Amino acid sequence: MASNIGNRVRLSVFGESHGTAVGCVIDGLPAGEALDWGEILTQMARRAPGRDKTSTPRQESDTPELLSGTLGSAEEGTLRTTGAPLAMLIRNQNTRSGDYAQLARLPRPGHADYPGFVRYQGYNDVRGGGHFSGRLTAPLVFAGAVCKQILRRRGVRVGGHILEIAGVRDRRFDPVSVNGGMLEGLSARPFALLDPAVETPMREKVEAARMDCDSVGGIVEVAAVGLPAGLGSPMFEGMENRLAALLFGVPAVKGVEFGEGFGFAGMRGSEANDPYAYDRNGRVVATSNHNGGLLGGITNGMPLLLRAAVKPTSSIGLPQRTVDLVSGEDAPLTVRGRHDPCIVPRALPVVEGVVCLGLLDAMETERAGE
Amino acid sequence: MASNIGNRVRLSVFGESHGTAVGCVIDGLPAGEALDWGEILTQMARRAPGRDKTSTPRQESDTPELLSGTLGSAEEGTLRTTGAPLAMLIRNQNTRSGDYAQLARLPRPGHADYPGFVRYQGYNDVRGGGHFSGRLTAPLVFAGAVCKQILRRRGVRVGGHILEIAGVRDRRFDPVSVNGGMLEGLSARPFALLDPAVETPMREKVEAARMDCDSVGGIVEVAAVGLPAGLGSPMFEGMENRLAALLFGVPAVKGVEFGEGFGFAGMRGSEANDPYAYDRNGRVVATSNHNGGLLGGITNGMPLLLRAAVKPTSSIGLPQRTVDLVSGEDAPLTVRGRHDPCIVPRALPVVEGVVCLGLLDAMETERAGE
Amino acid sequence: MASNIGNRVRLSVFGESHGTAVGCVIDGLPAGEALDWGEILTQMARRAPGRDKTSTPRQESDTPELLSGTLGSAEEGTLRTTGAPLAMLIRNQNTRSGDYAQLARLPRPGHADYPGFVRYQGYNDVRGGGHFSGRLTAPLVFAGAVCKQILRRRGVRVGGHILEIAGVRDRRFDPVSVNGGMLEGLSARPFALLDPAVETPMREKVEAARMDCDSVGGIVEVAAVGLPAGLGSPMFEGMENRLAALLFGVPAVKGVEFGEGFGFAGMRGSEANDPYAYDRNGRVVATSNHNGGLLGGITNGMPLLLRAAVKPTSSIGLPQRTVDLVSGEDAPLTVRGRHDPCIVPRALPVVEGVVCLGLLDAMETERAGE
Amino acid sequence: MASNIGNRVRLSVFGESHGTAVGCVIDGLPAGEALDWGEILTQMARRAPGRDKTSTPRQESDTPELLSGTLGSAEEGTLRTTGAPLAMLIRNQNTRSGDYAQLARLPRPGHADYPGFVRYQGYNDVRGGGHFSGRLTAPLVFAGAVCKQILRRRGVRVGGHILEIAGVRDRRFDPVSVNGGMLEGLSARPFALLDPAVETPMREKVEAARMDCDSVGGIVEVAAVGLPAGLGSPMFEGMENRLAALLFGVPAVKGVEFGEGFGFAGMRGSEANDPYAYDRNGRVVATSNHNGGLLGGITNGMPLLLRAAVKPTSSIGLPQRTVDLVSGEDAPLTVRGRHDPCIVPRALPVVEGVVCLGLLDAMETERAGE
Repeated sequence: MASNIGNRVRLSVFGESHGTAVGCVIDGLPAGEALDWGEILTQMARRAPGRDKTSTPRQESDTPELLSGTLGSAEEGTLRTTGAPLAMLIRNQNTRSGDYAQLARLPRPGHADYPGFVRYQGYNDVRGGGHFSGRLTAPLVFAGAVCKQILRRRGVRVGGHILEIAGVRDRRFDPVSVNGGMLEGLSARPFALLDPAVETPMREKVEAARMDCDSVGGIVEVAAVGLPAGLGSPMFEGMENRLAALLFGVPAVKGVEFGEGFGFAGMRGSEANDPYAYDRNGRVVATSNHNGGLLGGITNGMPLLLRAAVKPTSSIGLPQRTVDLVSGEDAPLTVRGRHDPCIVPRALPVVEGVVCLGLLDAMETERAGE
Repeated sequence: MASNIGNRVRLSVFGESHGTAVGCVIDGLPAGEALDWGEILTQMARRAPGRDKTSTPRQESDTPELLSGTLGSAEEGTLRTTGAPLAMLIRNQNTRSGDYAQLARLPRPGHADYPGFVRYQGYNDVRGGGHFSGRLTAPLVFAGAVCKQILRRRGVRVGGHILEIAGVRDRRFDPVSVNGGMLEGLSARPFALLDPAVETPMREKVEAARMDCDSVGGIVEVAAVGLPAGLGSPMFEGMENRLAALLFGVPAVKGVEFGEGFGFAGMRGSEANDPYAYDRNGRVVATSNHNGGLLGGITNGMPLLLRAAVKPTSSIGLPQRTVDLVSGEDAPLTVRGRHDPCIVPRALPVVEGVVCLGLLDAMETERAGE
Repeated sequence: MASNIGNRVRLSVFGESHGTAVGCVIDGLPAGEALDWGEILTQMARRAPGRDKTSTPRQESDTPELLSGTLGSAEEGTLRTTGAPLAMLIRNQNTRSGDYAQLARLPRPGHADYPGFVRYQGYNDVRGGGHFSGRLTAPLVFAGAVCKQILRRRGVRVGGHILEIAGVRDRRFDPVSVNGGMLEGLSARPFALLDPAVETPMREKVEAARMDCDSVGGIVEVAAVGLPAGLGSPMFEGMENRLAALLFGVPAVKGVEFGEGFGFAGMRGSEANDPYAYDRNGRVVATSNHNGGLLGGITNGMPLLLRAAVKPTSSIGLPQRTVDLVSGEDAPLTVRGRHDPCIVPRALPVVEGVVCLGLLDAMETERAGE
Repeated sequence: MASNIGNRVRLSVFGESHGTAVGCVIDGLPAGEALDWGEILTQMARRAPGRDKTSTPRQESDTPELLSGTLGSAEEGTLRTTGAPLAMLIRNQNTRSGDYAQLARLPRPGHADYPGFVRYQGYNDVRGGGHFSGRLTAPLVFAGAVCKQILRRRGVRVGGHILEIAGVRDRRFDPVSVNGGMLEGLSARPFALLDPAVETPMREKVEAARMDCDSVGGIVEVAAVGLPAGLGSPMFEGMENRLAALLFGVPAVKGVEFGEGFGFAGMRGSEANDPYAYDRNGRVVATSNHNGGLLGGITNGMPLLLRAAVKPTSSIGLPQRTVDLVSGEDAPLTVRGRHDPCIVPRALPVVEGVVCLGLLDAMETERAGE
């Protein structure tokens, strides 16, 4: 497997849905960084299931235990990084493996069951999806919450919102005026939207799918402000390359775009190019931001903007068609267990998290502006 | 900079638009692979400018010279890889650097000029965009053409088409029935389309932009067939992560999606999940392919399908607004020189090329199915 | 920090001597490999302190807990790798942090205290050496013991012995006739020697140093047999490069040599070159093995032979001179606590362990002979 | 193959001894660094063959051609790095491939011929050793000479001397007082020694071997002064790990040691530990330097000291025993051609070069002291 990534700030993720634990090792964090434990738990809670009807009623404690890499006390607010690898684990509980007993032979459509079976010759842990489970995103949120705090002290703020669920659309970030205060506000909310009026229709779509034993997909939009210009490297170590490599590590993400993204296909250059001007402080700014803060993979000092498409939850209650890998015959499948009719709200803090990880890694690797 | 990528098959790209040469080193190719030089030149010609009105009238010879890593003779058809690093260079000629003299102080909107200036403290070569130039895609096409031949001998075919230019759309690949013969046919054509009827309206849009001293964007779609199931690794070394990291290295690519991609946002799980069945030969197949051949980042044996959004050429003849980095004042800019009104047809072989590179790297790294 | 390494089989190590735990994540192990838990504990016990007078009287439980990456039961002998990251932790206990209170201001000569203080601006955990502690070798032995079992099933055996302690020398491996049975035998012993007669004089040297509140150094020699010819890649991914990068990760290792190593300085080419011949089975063999099984960084099918120099334990009871980083004045230092008068016997299983890790990584990366 | 290495400053080496060219790409050099072309040629000349009787009479022009990554003129002294990948090639000439015709079937003892044959299934270029040839060290010296200049501007000087040839020993560097002026002086010399009196006996040993159609080995010693304390990371990214991974990439290097290295085996801790004291300027220094400036893989501000063992040239004129890979029978071999009776003087600038590369990479990666 290859559940690790990063240049200077490197993440190694481990665990299975129904095994002993999930967790991660973050190697290369700067030393002496204060960690607000409460903020980490807040971000973990945004991802945790069981909060409302859009998610599975499974209760997961999701309480991370620190194993290494810090000194001080979370309770007393004196927790700091030491610069050594920061390891964390979350013990699993409340798992009902019986729900998944049939999966070893009946791969679920839309899941990694069948490719995983071939890749690991049938030796992989299929209970709850094993290492492919959405539960593995808990360490991603944890790592992101650590990085987010360090980024904030460097003047970088990251936040996002649900842009679309089941065809119901929030408005997009204003690519020029999006700011840190707004992003911090969104990042504290469980169901983050720019336009609160779309919450009800979105939730209705999710509830309708739930009633049908079905699921719906969506899009999340994330922004980062305060990045220095000049961050990123050409060709394969641009910010787009690095962030995309992280974002496609989030289960269910099937598309990533920066700035106008696929919308560029219908634009002309005269519209797409962002003109430059000096602002009042003599700083170079762009007067529009169709490119999402990135040109040639390198930041230009404008807000970084990206969107990630999230496919509908693969686990649905409706009957499906699959194959029986043991008998060698086609077979019907009804997936039991408790599943999210819509993963999008829980995917948002994960996407924000990996963006934070990618940005801090780039800043530690390149020290832009120094 | 960081113009290198890859796990087992590693690419290192070098050169500037108006410097001595562009080229690459491909490290880790399997030994003993026959290379059809004519096929390499065919792919290079698809990318080369000056062929028709959609591209710049600049003539570039684009003749690669082999420096190492092969034995035998291209002319006699006995060329083979040795397993040592394969290095190639293309000498630059027919450059008019005078066209770009002003760029050192007047960064072009939509280009990497300004981020590059900050990143390299003004020391980077700005002539023709330097290392950020689209000319650097010639080595990518070369490397892709080498990999494509090796993939073909392993039963894998890669090809693509122009899906959209300026709002005019070709039809999409049929995600189940797309096959190698079709892909090989497309991959030989300079303006590859599934529906020939859209060529004229597409070209009209490009010509209209050219007459307006403007440019247009588009989307390319690429497929790979014959891949074994089980290729790719979870989380950060999935095929989606790897291919996205390569694809965002192609200048002007601002979005990448797999299977339905952003279209998943409006779908239900019951529609998005691809059911399994045994085919006549007892092989597991999916009866639909919304996921583009990838689940959990790992191939499932169905055709791999992806799309990349290409922004409109940044270099346009229309007057634009920028800043004068020397005088510290806002300034008008008119970019002279010879530019492509639409880069999409030339971007297609580049996108195919990096997909070939990514697939061969993954196969060499993982030896799926063995 | 950068406590991770590897190409396909990647190790990420975490923990501090007096923190919550030490442990590791091994990513990329092949799936379906049976793990003999008893053998892992045997190797861990070889490294564990407190066994005899050459080591510290500290008792460390060193019982690893599996967190992920396996299925089955250690007790029932059904434990197998799943292919997912294998995470393990060992909780710390029996630590006396008071012993080390002064170290934050008085860096110990010969230790990483001072470089670590500068590297981490004083934020690193200094208790017991923190992440620089020899305790961090426990995860290395664990990882090595896992890899050793997998290697054995592929016909590769790894083992070693104490070649020298304080000037007392064991005889060297016969570079041609060293075999798997001998290596397995050595690898089970706590104080492995080829010539049992040197044990007593070695132990006397260690005891003399202990009585003097001082310490002694030595050399370990490790061999691997059964490796296929053709493993390794030229220049920077040769087996020598890979193994050296691992071996210098073992605390106290200050020199690494392959085959005759530094002895080549006094040899002639006619002596150093190993002639080839066909053996009875028509297999190419070398009739001598001065090169330690490696030419150009690549295995030639002969036994791989290496030696690592281990410096005397830095923690000694004798008074030493250091600086007081707080007062800014020179200061005397007496290191209290329980220390090994000789680390060499405990370093041996660590060196064997990282060799196993490097060999399995190379085999998984290159699949030599396929 | 895997002829590339590096974290931020990455080197990719290509070429074969009797192919079109050898060369390299250096990715990640800092931008705006002036390059003294004369100094680069001086270093290349130190490695070039044909200067005196210790080396082969082959004349190689070894004139590097810059392909990318610089602006300005070597002649006018205005050459500067741009930050883009710096590519260089040296065309081959004066090759007599006929000398090596038999090598495809008769692998030379001590060379990589046989492992290379297995590794590349007989497809590798065997002429002159192909990619395994010592000629591939020319790009290493080039890259080192570039890095050496950049290091000097940061206060770091690197130089070395021949410590031993055929049992004749120069004296070792004084580990505390070695300084930049001395290192610069040595680094300009073709046959660098601390004690000039050993040159004659060393040359006599080489000449005696040459007369016997044989060869001799030796040891080189390299120092670096002016390094900041705190450079390097624990475990696997220490300076020892990084430098060893580079040093074993130099053909014929079979052993590497830091500080006392293998000499630690006979020392006591009280002797090996380097005490600290404040110097007149209030800077922490060690009053001895047995550890060669490195503790826990991290610099302590003292001179970095290392030694590399170089085996006798494998190509000798004496008759040897080998196998005929075509006929499957044992066979006599007499290697014709022009070879170095002693590679040590030419290996010295190569070892210095890779040390420079490793140090600059570490400084660019870690920015110690910032």
